Amino acid sequence: MTLPPSSRTEVKRLPERARYDTEIVHGILDDALVCHVGFVIDGQPVVIPTIHARSGDRLYLHGSPANRMLRTLKQQVDVCVTVTLVDGLVLARSAFHHSMNYRSVVVFGSAREVTDPAEKMTAFRALVDHIAPRRWDTVRAPNEKEIRSTLVLALALAEASAKIRTGPPLDDEADYALPVWAGELPLRTVPGVPVDDPRLAPGAAVPDHVTDWRRSR
Amino acid sequence: MTLPPSSRTEVKRLPERARYDTEIVHGILDDALVCHVGFVIDGQPVVIPTIHARSGDRLYLHGSPANRMLRTLKQQVDVCVTVTLVDGLVLARSAFHHSMNYRSVVVFGSAREVTDPAEKMTAFRALVDHIAPRRWDTVRAPNEKEIRSTLVLALALAEASAKIRTGPPLDDEADYALPVWAGELPLRTVPGVPVDDPRLAPGAAVPDHVTDWRRSR
Repeated sequence: MTLPPSSRTEVKRLPERARYDTEIVHGILDDALVCHVGFVIDGQPVVIPTIHARSGDRLYLHGSPANRMLRTLKQQVDVCVTVTLVDGLVLARSAFHHSMNYRSVVVFGSAREVTDPAEKMTAFRALVDHIAPRRWDTVRAPNEKEIRSTLVLALALAEASAKIRTGPPLDDEADYALPVWAGELPLRTVPGVPVDDPRLAPGAAVPDHVTDWRRSR
Repeated sequence: MTLPPSSRTEVKRLPERARYDTEIVHGILDDALVCHVGFVIDGQPVVIPTIHARSGDRLYLHGSPANRMLRTLKQQVDVCVTVTLVDGLVLARSAFHHSMNYRSVVVFGSAREVTDPAEKMTAFRALVDHIAPRRWDTVRAPNEKEIRSTLVLALALAEASAKIRTGPPLDDEADYALPVWAGELPLRTVPGVPVDDPRLAPGAAVPDHVTDWRRSR
């Protein structure tokens, strides 16, 4: 499926980098650990990082009901949610043509508060499994009090676009003769050695979903 | 030095995670490869990722004069620039207490256009060396045409705050007895094998600043 570009999501700069396929948009949202949420308070832009999770064509955000960002968004104001994955450094022969290879998604819309307990539980599962796939089934599920005391918002992924850069630098023709190394330095997010909680119960071994953790790239 | 918290930068949620020391704020900005720039167009929030670089107490952004974000910001409207580094996954015994360890910085202010060619050159150097330290001296410097055709903006780092989470999950007391593995999975950004540009000039070997590339953590 392809999302029709709106006046807000149509990529104006370097439109050849734009992607509107839902599969690509969803994949980037799933790969990104955190998103950056933009909203307006008293005319001023505010950008706050937070954990997100996608389930179908919905993006879930959550937190304390006291959280200013969530309190603002639940009034269904305009929001812009952006995620960015840096896939590599693009090192050109000229300073001017330095860049990065990246995948980003920008989502516009307004969020609604999720009040249905079943949908809240769907969001919690998506959020835990977004952090570490397959973890949900191994942990204590949210209880009544935790469900009540968590504000969950859903944002429809109807107005979203992706932008992707790949490949080598694009230098000026004359610069290709320069004896300067140029190319891409690929970057990845990799896990280190898991650190046991200091109060780990006896026999609680590191599970496969932690030792095998990786992001797709 | 410590930046006095303003009404905008004072961290309200979890204030024990807040940091206002310039050294910490600057270090996080330097470690982050990209920032997320929030601004308002026709009342709507927009968040766009871009490369930034710090020089002293200034943050530089740059791009084409046709770039909508830069054209908007150069009118000295309010801007919010946020960077986030995810340092690890915080895996709790309960779904509710899952989190991430992170370092983030939020900067408020308004940007001014840099017109002085010497300061523009300072910004270009900072931007290239932000991507790959020590690279600037090895590449072709910007020429007159490139300097003229690049829009550079400077944002004073006067109103900025950092937020940092470290350490293990904080579970409910009763949950510590559960036989569920809990702890932190540290994450790092690491370089892969450098990919030569397909049109590399003969004898252009991969330089030390590429093979040694790393971010501080």
